[in-house]
Amino acid sequence: MSHPANTPRPPYYAVIFTSLRTEGDKGYGDMADLMVALASKQPGFLGLESAREDGLGITVSYWESLEAIKAWKDHVDHREAQAKGRSDWYRKYVTRICKVERDYSFE
Amino acid sequence: MSHPANTPRPPYYAVIFTSLRTEGDKGYGDMADLMVALASKQPGFLGLESAREDGLGITVSYWESLEAIKAWKDHVDHREAQAKGRSDWYRKYVTRICKVERDYSFE
Repeated sequence: MSHPANTPRPPYYAVIFTSLRTEGDKGYGDMADLMVALASKQPGFLGLESAREDGLGITVSYWESLEAIKAWKDHVDHREAQAKGRSDWYRKYVTRICKVERDYSFE
Repeated sequence: MSHPANTPRPPYYAVIFTSLRTEGDKGYGDMADLMVALASKQPGFLGLESAREDGLGITVSYWESLEAIKAWKDHVDHREAQAKGRSDWYRKYVTRICKVERDYSFE
């Protein structure tokens, strides 16, 4: 996952999830790995990028459509993780749903 | 900067810049600090979030309009930094220009 995601030509969608963790792991690491594995198998999933530094985490997932994003948001295992996120793992988070209109890359 | 950005109600715009660094600093740290300070003063700038982990860096900047994004892209000091980025600092990067259509938060 430590590479820029290999997404198709725009338009496609991005979910930017920015978070501040609470102290301690409390099962977060295992669940995060599980959610990445599960998200990757959802219809319309295009890729994922994630980094955390000085407490601030940024995870960007890429999707074919808003419908794919909604289906993943409503996935029963994901909903369970979201509830645990609010009760145990996150002090604060912001989720932003975006349409990627243009991209360019260098290599 | 280690907080989720305090953005207004959508719609607004996001630039997701995902990168892999080359080895060594080569003046990168100082220039990165300078570019954040300079971006923050541009018209239409709304906020910035940044994290790097295991070599993968994600910087998301938020803007009022596509015009504001273009003006910052074309800023002379920023153009100089972009050139240096391609010659010295980055092995690979992807820039994605997005329209934020919806957001929600937890605190």
